[in-house]
Amino acid sequence: MAQRLEWASLDAGARDAALQRPVQSVAGTTRESVRVLIDEVRGRGDAALREISERFDGVAPDSFEVTAEEFSAAEEAVPAALKAAMRDAAARIECFHRAGMAAPYAVETAPGVVCERVVRAIPRVGLYVPAGSAPLPSTALMLGVPAKLAGCREVVLCTPPRRDGSADPAVLVAARMTGVHRVFKLGGAQAIAAMAFGTGSVPRCAKLFGPGNSYVTEAKQQVAQAGVAAIDMPAGPSEVLVIADEGADAAFVAADLLSQAEHGPDSQVLLLSDSAGLLDRVERELEAQLAALPRAEIARQALSRSRLVLTGTLDEAFDISNAYAPEHLILALREPRGWLDRVEAAGSVFLGDFTPEALGDYCSGTNHVLPTNGAARAYSGVSVSSFQNFVSVQGASAEGIAGIGRCAVTLAEAEGLEAHANAVRLRLDKAAPEASTPRRGSGEP
Amino acid sequence: MAQRLEWASLDAGARDAALQRPVQSVAGTTRESVRVLIDEVRGRGDAALREISERFDGVAPDSFEVTAEEFSAAEEAVPAALKAAMRDAAARIECFHRAGMAAPYAVETAPGVVCERVVRAIPRVGLYVPAGSAPLPSTALMLGVPAKLAGCREVVLCTPPRRDGSADPAVLVAARMTGVHRVFKLGGAQAIAAMAFGTGSVPRCAKLFGPGNSYVTEAKQQVAQAGVAAIDMPAGPSEVLVIADEGADAAFVAADLLSQAEHGPDSQVLLLSDSAGLLDRVERELEAQLAALPRAEIARQALSRSRLVLTGTLDEAFDISNAYAPEHLILALREPRGWLDRVEAAGSVFLGDFTPEALGDYCSGTNHVLPTNGAARAYSGVSVSSFQNFVSVQGASAEGIAGIGRCAVTLAEAEGLEAHANAVRLRLDKAAPEASTPRRGSGEP
Repeated sequence: MAQRLEWASLDAGARDAALQRPVQSVAGTTRESVRVLIDEVRGRGDAALREISERFDGVAPDSFEVTAEEFSAAEEAVPAALKAAMRDAAARIECFHRAGMAAPYAVETAPGVVCERVVRAIPRVGLYVPAGSAPLPSTALMLGVPAKLAGCREVVLCTPPRRDGSADPAVLVAARMTGVHRVFKLGGAQAIAAMAFGTGSVPRCAKLFGPGNSYVTEAKQQVAQAGVAAIDMPAGPSEVLVIADEGADAAFVAADLLSQAEHGPDSQVLLLSDSAGLLDRVERELEAQLAALPRAEIARQALSRSRLVLTGTLDEAFDISNAYAPEHLILALREPRGWLDRVEAAGSVFLGDFTPEALGDYCSGTNHVLPTNGAARAYSGVSVSSFQNFVSVQGASAEGIAGIGRCAVTLAEAEGLEAHANAVRLRLDKAAPEASTPRRGSGEP
Repeated sequence: MAQRLEWASLDAGARDAALQRPVQSVAGTTRESVRVLIDEVRGRGDAALREISERFDGVAPDSFEVTAEEFSAAEEAVPAALKAAMRDAAARIECFHRAGMAAPYAVETAPGVVCERVVRAIPRVGLYVPAGSAPLPSTALMLGVPAKLAGCREVVLCTPPRRDGSADPAVLVAARMTGVHRVFKLGGAQAIAAMAFGTGSVPRCAKLFGPGNSYVTEAKQQVAQAGVAAIDMPAGPSEVLVIADEGADAAFVAADLLSQAEHGPDSQVLLLSDSAGLLDRVERELEAQLAALPRAEIARQALSRSRLVLTGTLDEAFDISNAYAPEHLILALREPRGWLDRVEAAGSVFLGDFTPEALGDYCSGTNHVLPTNGAARAYSGVSVSSFQNFVSVQGASAEGIAGIGRCAVTLAEAEGLEAHANAVRLRLDKAAPEASTPRRGSGEP
C-alpha cells in the first residue's frame, strides 16, 4: 500500500525522494524501434503502415480510412444512453472552451502605427485516441471539440484497429459528433509517423495531439524534435495530488486516489494532509474500496509507489504541491475556493468534496489532456488556442514611420545592423524628409 | 546574387526545392559537445561554468552575476539617445503586449458546476540575450517586457561576457528597464544548462527564452527534450518573405531583403511578385544598395541562397507563402490589409510600403522572437502568455454533481474505468441518493 510519511521528519534528500515520480526512462530499445518505425513509414508510406499494423495489431485493413458505412454501423452499435452522455459532455466541453477563446485585437501603439494580433486555425491537425486496455471516446471529445471551435479546416483522427479490423464504435461516434473530418484505423508510433509525414492515404498534419502509450509519446517527441510536426505537450503517466483537511470525507478521498491509480501501474498518487486522523481513515478506506475494484491489481501497483504525507500545516501542503506541479490537484478542503490563490502550478484543480477528478475527466467542461510529470510548471492543458496560431501584424502610415522611425534607426545602429537602419531611413526620406536627412549617419538625433 | 525563378515553369520537385530552407543540420559533433557541456554544468555547477567560460569566452569572472555597481556603470556608459530609444520601444512593446493579455474567466457549465481558467505567471523564467556579432539590447526588451507583464516572480537573464569580463552596457540597461531581476555574464550552451539545472550561483528556471547560435539552440532543444525546462520555441536562422506587386517601391523591397540577409549567411530571403518588371528593378536595387553595406559579405552569401520568384497571380504568391510559413511576411501591396485574410501561417506580417521589417524588429510594439524554419505553421511568437500557465478549475456543488454525475458514470463505465465511476457514485449517494442508488451498477439509466 501507499507509503506514510511525515514531512517535518524528512531531510532535504528524503523530501526530494518523496516527490520523485516513478522513473519512466524510455528504454534505448524503445527509442530505437520507434526511430525505425518512423523511418519505414516516412520512406514507404502505406505499404509500411500495412506491414507494421499486421505486426502489432494483428490486422492490416485494405483501407485505413473509416468509411461512411462504418460510421453508420457505429451509430447503430452505440447505446442511446452512451450517445446522450457523450452529447451532454460535448456540450459542456464546448461551453467552457468557447468562453475562453482568444479574440483578435488591434491597438494604435503610436500615431499612424497599428499593431494587431490575428488568430488563424492550424489548417490540418492530427488527433490520437488510444485504445489500450479500453477505448477512450472521451479523449475524442476532448480533442475534437476545441479543434472544431478553432476552425481547423481538416481534423484527422487515428485510433488503433480492433482485432477484427474495425474501430471502436464509441470513438467513431464521438469523432463524428465533434466534426472530425477523417478517421483512420491506425495505432501506435506508425499512426504518429503517418500524420507527421503524410502517406498516400493519411494527410500530413502540422500539429499532433493526444495521449498514448510509451511508443506513441516517444514517436511524438521524435517528430517534434525533428521539426516535422508540432505536438500538444510532452506526456507521461497520469497523476493526482490531493490536499485534504480534517473535515474531508475519507471515502471520497480514497475513491479519488483509486480512480487515478486504476489508470496504470505507473500512475502517481499523492495525498497531503495536516490531519493524521484523516490519513488513517483514508488508509482504511483504500483497503476497503480496493477489494471491490475490477482493476484492483493495477491500482495496487500504483498505490505501492504512492505517498500519504502528513504536513505541519495546509500552507505547507500547498508549497509541496507547487514544487510537484501535479496534473490533477484536488482540494478536499472546507473553503477550497479561498485556497486557490495558493496554487501556482497544476494542470486542473478540483474544488471541494463534490468535485471528483472523474467529473473533469469526462464532463464538467474542462479539458482532460493535461501536462504530466511536472510539466505543469511551464505547460498548460489543451485549449482552443492549442489549435490556433497567433500572428502579429503591423501597419505604419507615412506619418507613423515618421514618428517612430528614428527610434528603430537608433537601435539598429547600436546593434551594428546597418541594412536595418537603411530600410527605415529610405522610408523616412520619403515620408518625412526633414525628419531624416539631417540626421542620417549621425547615429543620434 | 539571388536566383530568379518563374513559378509556372517549375515542376513539383523544383517547387519544393525553391522553398527549401538552407539546410541547417546540427552536426553530430555539435550535438555531442553540447551534451558534454550540459553534463559538466549539471554535475559540477559553477566550477564547470568557470572552466567553460574561460575556454569559450576567454574570461572566467569570480562572480557571474552582474552587480549593482556594474548596472550603475552601464547607465553611465549608454548614450542618452539610445536610452531614450529603448524607453520608447519598451513603452510600445508594453502597449501592444498588455492589450493582448488573457484574462481569467468562469462559466457555469451546468447548474451548480462552475468551470474556470485562472492565469498564473511561471514563477522563474530564464532569458538568453546573445551577443555574437553584436549585442542585442532589443532582444532583452522583447523578452523582458512580456515577462514583467506576466508577473514572473524572478526573471533571470544570461548574456555572454565581453573579453574584459563585463557585460554589454546597453543589454544591462535594457534588462534593468524591463525589471529583469538578475543578470548573469554567461553565454552559450553553458548558460542554458545553468538556467535549466541551476548551479550554486544561477537559479533553476522552469522555462527558457530567446534566440542564440547553434550551440544555444541545440542546448535548449536538449534540456526541453529531457523534460528539464520548457523552451519558447524551436529556433532556426531568420527569414523574410516579401510579396510585392507592380506598384511596390523597388528600393524599399531591396532594403528589406538586405536587412534580413545581413543577419547571417544562412538567413533566407524570398521575394514573390506577379510583376517581372518589379523583380528586375529589385535586382538592380539589390546590387546598388549592397555595395554600400558594411556587412555586405554576409548579405551577399545569404542572397546567393535566396530567390526572386515570378508568380502568375498575387493569389498564387499567398499559396506559396502559406506553404513556406515565413517568420516575417512583408506585403508590399497597394491594398495590403485587404490581403490579410489570405495569410494562414506567418510569424509577423508587415503591411505596406511604410512598414519595413525593421520597425517590428525594434519598436512597432510587436515581438521579434518569432517562429522560424516553417514552425509558424504551428507555433506563434512570444507573447505574455508564453510566460504564463493557464490552470483550469472546477467546482461542483451537491446539486451540480447530482445533475451531471450520471453522465460521468456512463462514460467511465463505457471506458471500463470502474474506480472513476465509483468516485462519482459515492458522491451521488450523498448528494442525491434517489438519483444514484436505483441505477448503480446498471450501466444505463
